[in-house]
Amino acid sequence: MKILLIGATGTIGAAVAQALETRHEVLRAGRTRLALAVDLEDKESIRRLYAKVGRVDAVVSAAGQAAFRPLPALSDADIALGLGSKLMGQINLVRLGLDTLTDNGSFTLTSGILSRQPMPGGAAISMVNAGLEGFVRGASLELPRGLRINVVSPGWVTETLMALKMDPGKGIPAAQVAKVYVKAIEGSMNGQTLDALPGMV
Amino acid sequence: MKILLIGATGTIGAAVAQALETRHEVLRAGRTRLALAVDLEDKESIRRLYAKVGRVDAVVSAAGQAAFRPLPALSDADIALGLGSKLMGQINLVRLGLDTLTDNGSFTLTSGILSRQPMPGGAAISMVNAGLEGFVRGASLELPRGLRINVVSPGWVTETLMALKMDPGKGIPAAQVAKVYVKAIEGSMNGQTLDALPGMV
Repeated sequence: MKILLIGATGTIGAAVAQALETRHEVLRAGRTRLALAVDLEDKESIRRLYAKVGRVDAVVSAAGQAAFRPLPALSDADIALGLGSKLMGQINLVRLGLDTLTDNGSFTLTSGILSRQPMPGGAAISMVNAGLEGFVRGASLELPRGLRINVVSPGWVTETLMALKMDPGKGIPAAQVAKVYVKAIEGSMNGQTLDALPGMV
Repeated sequence: MKILLIGATGTIGAAVAQALETRHEVLRAGRTRLALAVDLEDKESIRRLYAKVGRVDAVVSAAGQAAFRPLPALSDADIALGLGSKLMGQINLVRLGLDTLTDNGSFTLTSGILSRQPMPGGAAISMVNAGLEGFVRGASLELPRGLRINVVSPGWVTETLMALKMDPGKGIPAAQVAKVYVKAIEGSMNGQTLDALPGMV
């Protein structure tokens, strides 16, 4: 398969690229540092990316930002970041990418465990992640030509916890998370939220 | 209790007002036709509403709009309506209303069954409803002074189905839906999505 991967330089994205490239052609895209540059908050940037890559068999997003901040301190800008980047950025990848996918192709997006396992400071991220999962459930019923859409919901990633100098014991290694993306791309599920949690993969 | 009800003239809102007013004081607010006018898409309008009513024991929202439209036809404006009105309108009621509630007061918002039981044409609404439920799970962990927040997720309402000339047989009467709001207001649950479906109430 020819697979377009957005967010290819991130902790999860790099692991997904590595897991996919043994059997597939991976086109790496990201905000910076890559030949395929894309700004998820800018629909024209997404359109240019798709025009550049032509038809692909899968679009994978491990990209999008949202703000982690206590509820009373959450600013309009914090909320706009989550809505514009992680939520609508990924949804616009789908809306603008319908014709980019070959028949029976797939979208695989990224939410996160805060959707259903909230924690203090995560209200805006819980909103964004849950909204993505709801969109995927709905959109899966309407995709043409055998297209599929799913969303991977990773728990805390070991490498991220280590970078934050937090206890990595409860994390899931990025390489394990990547296996769930591979399942979504190579499998036949549609409309699903696929958890990537320690011990589950 | 003194209860501020936004969306008081809607099908659900009117039933909620009727169910509450036997034992509580209900302050009715809505977009039009009421002394307490509020535009959920306008933060200043929400601020003016709160300034006008002073402290209340509960804020209930049965308000907010979102577009039902097939995925390929969903416009940016359709999505902006759902994000600005039903999603962020209700979330801003919470963000701006924290000081309006008395100790142990509650917010009760409205999502809808499309969050978890999608149907074609409902992707934008599934996104908004699921996002609300995610926000409520997250925000519930951070509210001060014993405040609570929940969201009611109604199925198709009998009166709405009749107005749309659809089979009302699978609907739930608005009066039954209203009982779930009363439970959320008078009960002790926090962070919950409360389904209001036929046969469940």
